[in-house]
Amino acid sequence: MQNWLTKQVSLNPERIALTVAEQSWTFKELQTAVIKIAGQLTTLAVTTNQRIAILAKNTAASYLTIMAVQQLGIQPVLLNFRLAKDELQRQLQDSHVEALLIDDELAVKLSEWADLPVKIYLLSEVRSTLSTPVKVITDFSESAVASIMYTSGTTGNPHGVLQTFKNHFYSAMGSALNLGLAEDDRWLCAVPLFHISGLSIMMRSLIYGMGVDLVGHFDDIAVTKRLTMEPITIMSVVPTMLKRLLPLVPMTGYNKKFRCFLLGGGPIDPTTLAQCEQQNIAVIQSYGMTETSSQIVALNFADARLKIGSVGKPLFPVQIRLANSEQGVGEIELQAPNLTVGYLNQASEFARKITPDGWYQTGDLGFIDEDGFLFIKGRRDDMFISGGENIFPDEVEHAYSQYPGMYEIAVVGKSDNDWGMIPVAFIISEGELNIKDLYEFGRQHLAHYKVPVEFIKVDALPKTASGKVQRHKLRELL
Amino acid sequence: MQNWLTKQVSLNPERIALTVAEQSWTFKELQTAVIKIAGQLTTLAVTTNQRIAILAKNTAASYLTIMAVQQLGIQPVLLNFRLAKDELQRQLQDSHVEALLIDDELAVKLSEWADLPVKIYLLSEVRSTLSTPVKVITDFSESAVASIMYTSGTTGNPHGVLQTFKNHFYSAMGSALNLGLAEDDRWLCAVPLFHISGLSIMMRSLIYGMGVDLVGHFDDIAVTKRLTMEPITIMSVVPTMLKRLLPLVPMTGYNKKFRCFLLGGGPIDPTTLAQCEQQNIAVIQSYGMTETSSQIVALNFADARLKIGSVGKPLFPVQIRLANSEQGVGEIELQAPNLTVGYLNQASEFARKITPDGWYQTGDLGFIDEDGFLFIKGRRDDMFISGGENIFPDEVEHAYSQYPGMYEIAVVGKSDNDWGMIPVAFIISEGELNIKDLYEFGRQHLAHYKVPVEFIKVDALPKTASGKVQRHKLRELL
Repeated sequence: MQNWLTKQVSLNPERIALTVAEQSWTFKELQTAVIKIAGQLTTLAVTTNQRIAILAKNTAASYLTIMAVQQLGIQPVLLNFRLAKDELQRQLQDSHVEALLIDDELAVKLSEWADLPVKIYLLSEVRSTLSTPVKVITDFSESAVASIMYTSGTTGNPHGVLQTFKNHFYSAMGSALNLGLAEDDRWLCAVPLFHISGLSIMMRSLIYGMGVDLVGHFDDIAVTKRLTMEPITIMSVVPTMLKRLLPLVPMTGYNKKFRCFLLGGGPIDPTTLAQCEQQNIAVIQSYGMTETSSQIVALNFADARLKIGSVGKPLFPVQIRLANSEQGVGEIELQAPNLTVGYLNQASEFARKITPDGWYQTGDLGFIDEDGFLFIKGRRDDMFISGGENIFPDEVEHAYSQYPGMYEIAVVGKSDNDWGMIPVAFIISEGELNIKDLYEFGRQHLAHYKVPVEFIKVDALPKTASGKVQRHKLRELL
Repeated sequence: MQNWLTKQVSLNPERIALTVAEQSWTFKELQTAVIKIAGQLTTLAVTTNQRIAILAKNTAASYLTIMAVQQLGIQPVLLNFRLAKDELQRQLQDSHVEALLIDDELAVKLSEWADLPVKIYLLSEVRSTLSTPVKVITDFSESAVASIMYTSGTTGNPHGVLQTFKNHFYSAMGSALNLGLAEDDRWLCAVPLFHISGLSIMMRSLIYGMGVDLVGHFDDIAVTKRLTMEPITIMSVVPTMLKRLLPLVPMTGYNKKFRCFLLGGGPIDPTTLAQCEQQNIAVIQSYGMTETSSQIVALNFADARLKIGSVGKPLFPVQIRLANSEQGVGEIELQAPNLTVGYLNQASEFARKITPDGWYQTGDLGFIDEDGFLFIKGRRDDMFISGGENIFPDEVEHAYSQYPGMYEIAVVGKSDNDWGMIPVAFIISEGELNIKDLYEFGRQHLAHYKVPVEFIKVDALPKTASGKVQRHKLRELL
């Protein structure tokens, strides 16, 4: 297919492509700005490599730079700026990049990062360089790598996920076939561009010819104002964002064109969903991963209110099945044209996740109800068996999320002579823990064997750079 | 990808898939009906072949039968029932089919067709057969042939165009990215199922999960009533349909959800388009062909009123260019994932139409204006040169379509000693021709060398089964 940016400039030159605060770019203006940066990168001679690493923030400069790298046929390696230095170093080495572009909003970290084994450029440096005239690539070839992201992984070593243009195209098509597509769609992006949740919005913009409202820092009041005053139709959110936005929804609702929140990044509690329903706010729950270039399973509008707790059905291009299903719960396996072609330099690691008959093993557990709706039960590696019964930490945590004063909870299994394993809860909460009350609460909401045997108060939980609890570290604590 | 019908049954089992007059089928009911027919075809042992020919009318029986054949992984060969018997025979032989299914509405032709070299079954026979339990195919493989249609061709031998599932998928995506996609979209199909204009609606239904209103016979009053009373959002039309519908549009317009007419099958006059605008009826002009499984170029809503006469810009997956361009007009060449993989048993015929650098030569002439909009100028083989000037019959005919009492006109070139060729017009009109007046009219609207030198009154024009004028037969007359 033709270079998507070139194509949108020919199809919709005057349509708004990007808005950041008070500034907007039409597709034509976007192309001009992007090609200028491509020329600046060329002047800096960082474009002789196959890949360029970027530490992006949700700024116009980062957005345009990611596009500029793609326009040159170079693979952007999108790194997470919350990573520790040694993690960054490992990913830079694994991806064999020689240049690292850093958003100026991260300049404060420059001295810390100065001795990383790459040439470092601030985006402001790039943008003050003379721009060499360049030729952008004419085609976005299906098999070409459009982006690389390291999966944070809750255990073990991160893998560089190769996301091709084909992956992004089918991801965008699957989403459009579920959510529909309107000429005036405008998607608010407050999720990070270095995550697939954010980058996929940029890719959809290029495929749909759609405007993106890029928000740098998630400020619930500012976002509410944008959703109310601007004709934004969709916003991607994670549960914490949604919880913070809900109390602020104006009496008269958001702007008239607002269609829905697309919710990813984990389960949401029923109370929050009930509030959404009460306030007439459509929330489309979804499930996806870096390896599938965003959503693969989502609810549709009709079912969003009927199947609370489910992440929906596999989107049009996607097939899923459950493997090694016990009592209906099994590992989710999938086939989809948006599945990554593999991990960078770690082909065998990826091959290990493919079944002999060609299905990708997600490592997530789920069950599918009689109507075909998928419910996520957590990570396969987090499940444990107590007295012969499977315990899914997510389920226990989910039940306790309703407990008064509970801020966060993580459940893991601890070895036990009698039961094999027993559930233990790590809790962040206001005030002291009332163990008896916590136990009673558990008995009211869960089967007895699922109720934690120990409750441990902590000040913080070990997390990955993308905010996922590292249960393996908790298990080590025990 | 998974079998699209299976997929829609899992995604949208209770959504209406098909409506014919007063009867409707949900996707689940559609699947049940289709599988039953698949079983009946199996009982009749016509399913041992790779292909089955169908003479379809726009009836539920034909619609379900085409799907049933696809569900068995067999290629439906969709024939045009207006073909002469020897043409049918040639296509049946070319496609090596052994069985021909005939819609009961064509039963009157049975005796004429009785000795065609195939086993013939009326659909009512099929549907009164016991149904054998069958397994439908699990996947619609990208490269598998979903349908075969013979291009009518205005000259020469027809070719069986192989339309793969990939072709249909990208065609549907290109259309959705242009027209948008709404959950409640419902497409009225009054164009023939054996044409790509009709079959592509069926395919979009399976991809979008969209309802189709199938209309057997185009009755302008009945269609107006459906567009007014039913929540139909889109209707595919050819120019004559649009012209007949316009005077009947109710004062209050069609139903509120009606979005647009999708216009294909040739140019429309500016008067008709102006009427549409006056009545606030959106018309999306488009250009496509059997070889691309429907539209490849179309106007969008924003441009529909600004670029009257243009067929628009190449859709998202499509690229076009003009070859051998003279004064801006050249042959339209294209690259697209919805381009056919070739002609059945005539690989070399197809290869001949591919340029050395991989572009498909459409045989159509066009020009692209400064904003990138395509205007069609007619068939390459119809153009002729008079005194060194190119003459496009379409342009001359278009100008004369406004002449009072003009019913139809066809222009061809005739050999001339002085000019090389001169334009001659064949005209169907009310009353006698006023040659002087016709000439004056031409001089007012056309460059002098384009004005026909002869005007010949005829009662009928030679046409293909699909209604295209066969100019080569007119040339032979001269």
